[in-house]
Amino acid sequence: MNVDGQPFRTIWHQSEEDQVWIIDQTELPHAFITRRLETLETAAHAITAMLVRGAPLIGATAAYGFALGLRTEGDDAAMIHARNTLLATRPTAINLKWSLDRMQSAVANLPPKERFQAALAEAGRICDEDVSVNESIGNHGAALLADLASARSTAPPLNILTHCNAGWLATVDWGTALSPVYKAQAAGIPLHVWVDETRPRNQGASLTAWELGSHGVPHTLITDNAGGHLMQQGKIDLCLVGTDRTTANGDVCNKIGTYLKALAAADNAIPFYVALPSSTIDWSLHDGRSIPIEERDPREVIWIKGQTTGGVMEEVRLAPAGSPALNVAFDVTPARLVTGLITERGICPASTQGLAAMYPEFGSGK
Amino acid sequence: MNVDGQPFRTIWHQSEEDQVWIIDQTELPHAFITRRLETLETAAHAITAMLVRGAPLIGATAAYGFALGLRTEGDDAAMIHARNTLLATRPTAINLKWSLDRMQSAVANLPPKERFQAALAEAGRICDEDVSVNESIGNHGAALLADLASARSTAPPLNILTHCNAGWLATVDWGTALSPVYKAQAAGIPLHVWVDETRPRNQGASLTAWELGSHGVPHTLITDNAGGHLMQQGKIDLCLVGTDRTTANGDVCNKIGTYLKALAAADNAIPFYVALPSSTIDWSLHDGRSIPIEERDPREVIWIKGQTTGGVMEEVRLAPAGSPALNVAFDVTPARLVTGLITERGICPASTQGLAAMYPEFGSGK
Repeated sequence: MNVDGQPFRTIWHQSEEDQVWIIDQTELPHAFITRRLETLETAAHAITAMLVRGAPLIGATAAYGFALGLRTEGDDAAMIHARNTLLATRPTAINLKWSLDRMQSAVANLPPKERFQAALAEAGRICDEDVSVNESIGNHGAALLADLASARSTAPPLNILTHCNAGWLATVDWGTALSPVYKAQAAGIPLHVWVDETRPRNQGASLTAWELGSHGVPHTLITDNAGGHLMQQGKIDLCLVGTDRTTANGDVCNKIGTYLKALAAADNAIPFYVALPSSTIDWSLHDGRSIPIEERDPREVIWIKGQTTGGVMEEVRLAPAGSPALNVAFDVTPARLVTGLITERGICPASTQGLAAMYPEFGSGK
Repeated sequence: MNVDGQPFRTIWHQSEEDQVWIIDQTELPHAFITRRLETLETAAHAITAMLVRGAPLIGATAAYGFALGLRTEGDDAAMIHARNTLLATRPTAINLKWSLDRMQSAVANLPPKERFQAALAEAGRICDEDVSVNESIGNHGAALLADLASARSTAPPLNILTHCNAGWLATVDWGTALSPVYKAQAAGIPLHVWVDETRPRNQGASLTAWELGSHGVPHTLITDNAGGHLMQQGKIDLCLVGTDRTTANGDVCNKIGTYLKALAAADNAIPFYVALPSSTIDWSLHDGRSIPIEERDPREVIWIKGQTTGGVMEEVRLAPAGSPALNVAFDVTPARLVTGLITERGICPASTQGLAAMYPEFGSGK
């Protein structure tokens, strides 16, 4: 999407010198800095240090990192080293292994000298496929937004609440939950996005607010506490969020706090939609109760980073020294609270039947 | 309550030299600093600059401020000046006017030379009455906590979630929502408090976590997003919050985000109680829809203050420069989501009938 009028992806390949570039997301929203991934090691570091984040973007970065690992020597030892190095960066990211498996299959049968270029091409295809899936989600979601906008009895804009960052910064481009927003805006539908700041890591304040602002989408930052009140006041027309994992019955695991917004949406008869590529559906789990929930360092609750009035990045402590804290990263929104799932194939009910009908090759009938 | 083993109130009078002291709450949780209110002007500044906050404590500080204004000259001009100065500090605080009306009535008919001492005595009575009301709330609430603790099928402790700060720091002592916690702990009931950090002003992280820690109550700080998940996981036995205003039908206006926790409590069949002195019941309003909701400076959402690793207080910006933000300070939890109201007279249903039966002199029959 656009940054100050210029289109960007989160990762891209410059074919002249086979350079791979990323946006350093640790600097956002205070500085827009692009960095070159020169080697396998810099790519691995970009994932570990979260210069890139979001499952699709992690997968894409691992793909290019694998390719860079074959630049000077394309032999099997280099391939194994690249794979192991990248697998160790974020061991729980599901897209990482998938991406590396695919990269290895694509080049393993080629002569070592051809592997680097073939790997670059395959990484490019992985990126393009992510963009294509997200665009499909965006087109289906934008049609929904158009319907909701025309059904409104009050004046525009259509008011959308989102939680965390499921925007283009979490993918190669377009995003998942925000793809319908970008597509709808491009189609001329007046809209406005309420952005949950999304404590403790504040992806809403630092990433979603930044990417919407940079692309020119009207938005307002709010605390995570505010959404319920705004729904009571009729100031939200729908909720639109992403997901890290969806189970076969339509239960949705997403950033902590999503469940609270889904409850408020149900209490105020406001539609609650979840946008997802089908790759994040876990067909092996019947419902969300069996999803393991990541607990992260309590330090993320106690300390927060930002820019001082003097323009310096600084971390400050918010709680008493030694205060105990718990940092649960995700929660599960039961399918009963989800109005619909926006996938690359279309919108379906958040139910075993709904998902099985949309994906008969995976669904419960198989 | 205790600070490092020593009992404190939030405001107190040292009779030797007629000095009035407060805890400077703007320094919490990073430093415990007491300050002397030397004059009417320092008392007024303490309210304006929020060295003291919480409606009962504002009322108590205004009472002492009024007294201090009569120290050198106790004539009518001094009395009018004191009243006007204090009324201008926080124009919307309901306890401020009530307190000043009462102070003026108590001394107006006395000779000017006797007014200072009489005013000090009346301010002391206002403080003692606040403590007494809060202790009653605590005793009724502690009985409830004892019942809930003995009805639990799982091992102790009893897990309580609270939002914002309705502790002793918001009152003269004991607090409202936290008074039952202190009383129950003193009665030997094992308990643990989940503390919502309460964005944007973070009263949970800076005040509630501090006062519980200082008094020795087991607690854990969480983000405002986490409570719903913890309820789904069976880790919360009840919610216990304060209120700024309760309407005649039992609707509860409290810090923004309270409504979301009430929804999650209802969805998980967890009791949701609100503790309140009857002085905060607004008998003139039939329901919460007519309560005006304060909007505060969006800067409170965008910037946050804390202590750096170097021990310096610093404010940092969390969002992109120029990011639009909305800062709504309160929300309304409908009575249907409230299990009961804990008042100084006992616990009653959050309903017109429940409140009228508890307060027949105010209730709808009158």
